[in-house]
Amino acid sequence: MEPYALTATEALSRIESGFLSATAWVESCLERIRLRDPEVRAWESVNQDVLDEVDARWRKDGRPSIPVGVKDIIDVRGQPTMMGTDFHDPGPKTRDGGSVAIMREAGCALIGKTVTTELGHLHPGPTRNPRNLGHTPGGSSSGSAAAVADQMVPLCLGTQTSGSVIRPASYCGVIGYKPTFNDFDKTGILANAPSIDTLGMFARSVDDIGLMRGILLEEPYQGIDEINLSDLRIGVLRSPPWETAETEVLDLVENFARDITDQGSQVVDLRLDREISRLLELHRLISGYEFRRSIAFERFHQFDRLSTVLREGRLADGQELDSRGYQNALQELTGLRSNLARAFQEVDVIATPSAASPAPRTLAATGSAAFNSAWSLAGNPVISLPLFNSRESGLPIGCQFIVGFAKDNLLLAASKEIMAAFEIT
Amino acid sequence: MEPYALTATEALSRIESGFLSATAWVESCLERIRLRDPEVRAWESVNQDVLDEVDARWRKDGRPSIPVGVKDIIDVRGQPTMMGTDFHDPGPKTRDGGSVAIMREAGCALIGKTVTTELGHLHPGPTRNPRNLGHTPGGSSSGSAAAVADQMVPLCLGTQTSGSVIRPASYCGVIGYKPTFNDFDKTGILANAPSIDTLGMFARSVDDIGLMRGILLEEPYQGIDEINLSDLRIGVLRSPPWETAETEVLDLVENFARDITDQGSQVVDLRLDREISRLLELHRLISGYEFRRSIAFERFHQFDRLSTVLREGRLADGQELDSRGYQNALQELTGLRSNLARAFQEVDVIATPSAASPAPRTLAATGSAAFNSAWSLAGNPVISLPLFNSRESGLPIGCQFIVGFAKDNLLLAASKEIMAAFEIT
Repeated sequence: MEPYALTATEALSRIESGFLSATAWVESCLERIRLRDPEVRAWESVNQDVLDEVDARWRKDGRPSIPVGVKDIIDVRGQPTMMGTDFHDPGPKTRDGGSVAIMREAGCALIGKTVTTELGHLHPGPTRNPRNLGHTPGGSSSGSAAAVADQMVPLCLGTQTSGSVIRPASYCGVIGYKPTFNDFDKTGILANAPSIDTLGMFARSVDDIGLMRGILLEEPYQGIDEINLSDLRIGVLRSPPWETAETEVLDLVENFARDITDQGSQVVDLRLDREISRLLELHRLISGYEFRRSIAFERFHQFDRLSTVLREGRLADGQELDSRGYQNALQELTGLRSNLARAFQEVDVIATPSAASPAPRTLAATGSAAFNSAWSLAGNPVISLPLFNSRESGLPIGCQFIVGFAKDNLLLAASKEIMAAFEIT
Repeated sequence: MEPYALTATEALSRIESGFLSATAWVESCLERIRLRDPEVRAWESVNQDVLDEVDARWRKDGRPSIPVGVKDIIDVRGQPTMMGTDFHDPGPKTRDGGSVAIMREAGCALIGKTVTTELGHLHPGPTRNPRNLGHTPGGSSSGSAAAVADQMVPLCLGTQTSGSVIRPASYCGVIGYKPTFNDFDKTGILANAPSIDTLGMFARSVDDIGLMRGILLEEPYQGIDEINLSDLRIGVLRSPPWETAETEVLDLVENFARDITDQGSQVVDLRLDREISRLLELHRLISGYEFRRSIAFERFHQFDRLSTVLREGRLADGQELDSRGYQNALQELTGLRSNLARAFQEVDVIATPSAASPAPRTLAATGSAAFNSAWSLAGNPVISLPLFNSRESGLPIGCQFIVGFAKDNLLLAASKEIMAAFEIT
């Protein structure tokens, strides 16, 4: 197995045992990028000095560096932040975002910036789905999902305001994780809707997610908690937009529910129709209102260079509320979060599709976040696990798992067991 | 009266009537800055092109520009953001913060950047209190408060995480206002504690506050609502840290309570001891935790150049919580906000000192935020009105008014009536 194909946890273990050098690992990733990126186009820019930095650190302290890609709406010192546009400052940033500074200090090798859709919204960049180059990788964290799926790097940072981590993870067949709202620092990241925006990540193993979570929290990482599937109460959420998903997707989730019952989990039906439907509407209104202000500079000075989908979508939505309506919407959200907290007294984990379908066959759009937006606004931790493949196209299909506020350790523990029991390899 | 001494509302009215030109107004402000700033040192930098911009707009469209100063932790295109340090990028920013873009589009003349304390925390910049140059102007929005107090500009933007708007407003004898949390966009502003940081402003009249609030919300401004003092239920909050204030300050607030009763308001005693004391402790923990991450870049790369008060104060506080404790603290805050909402069913407005004393006689510190931090965390709208003067020193003393969430219009309406009834001119 080539080093680039290893998860971070595997590579670090081999380095620890002396079977792999830190430099060779990163070199292998960079070679994989050189080989594959002309087709996949996951990278906006690659840091040409990174191998020297990794090598110097390795020779000086004997400490390895974890190669990581960073979505190009997040500031990394020494590299520009283009935000998926061609009109932003191409000069290098002088200050790392908070989470980037923390990663760098912990010894991550900041390989480069991954392609984002326009301003983290819907209009696609050049990235293709590495599982089938004619299909979208999803967005907005398009390059991050594709780079991890194509084994260019084991881990990438992404962000989610609607479905920008969970959806591309599902389409590309990797793990996508967004933590409890506020868990990871967001300074130095282009704001879309600050009340919703969440820094998340992509990886090919749950252990790698846990490893990077520990780094970003600056807390010692003790490994993923152990848990038995038979201790889990899993609520299968069939509320809207359930019925909009493709039949194959629904069948796969139903099969999963049956199979995990066989593994000993208690599976219950869950309906949150009113909550989900209000969350979806509030998400549209709040994210529109906030986005309109966050990108006020571009709205006033670059309006004609923005995509139609942005101008007529979220920017138009942003005009529906006035400031009073906006504060009322935030107030209503507080109430909905209490209702959801009550639902999580009856189940430990919610399971529902990550997306309505496998990656659509287009490069002109990035798919729909309908299965994700409610949970982005709710702020609960969410993970997409690459459990299924389409019988028709062979493309990956993810299953989305959601837990109660601040129960991220439970989510990762359950995910690890589920992956072990169900992963298609 | 020189144009620089006018409030924005007064100047716009004179311009409208043809008694003043838009150019002459801004020219007068710039001349005032040239004359006074060598002593007061409110400005980090002044935009040398601003008069040409104002003149061009005036000649082209006949539209006046409101001269405004911007705290130097807020990005303004074409000017550096130094954040009260000597080690940040002195190159010009290429993107306005959201609220700055909105102000610029509405025709504000961005006069320059006002002095901030180090990274918006406690360590002072060079600004002096214009009412007595041997006294602190307060902080962290030191230059903004001083510039408005010294009639250099009618309006300045500031930010508050602890008491960075209300305290300097009180010390300098101007109006300081922070709106309901989330009311004004914060993109392009150095984050201190994102769950608390609030963009606010300084002015010399309540009308000017209303005018700029309308601009920042992009809503048509209809003027301040009319209200009768006799319709107001005012709760005088004598909870801790009440007893830490100087006797003169407490006497002045008690006198105010008596006098406003004579004006017909219903005045009631209010105690929120448990809530205030928990809010103060949670403020210390949450702001410390978030600040530590927001300035991770400086923490890792410039630690030795940071002040002792920052390193041993908020950065040290930030180590007390782990991520679980932090999420628990945010959860507890939600409950406290509900309790406060119930208190506002019994009173319309809370009155309490803005600060424990007039501006301390020092330039080496910026005073205490003990009277402000609880309300910063709670997120309620707050205003400081320059109602009093010290009999001993002649220095101004502010009175702080607080209303329920999203009741900003009520706060401004009450403030206007209170200023009319009590202002010392």
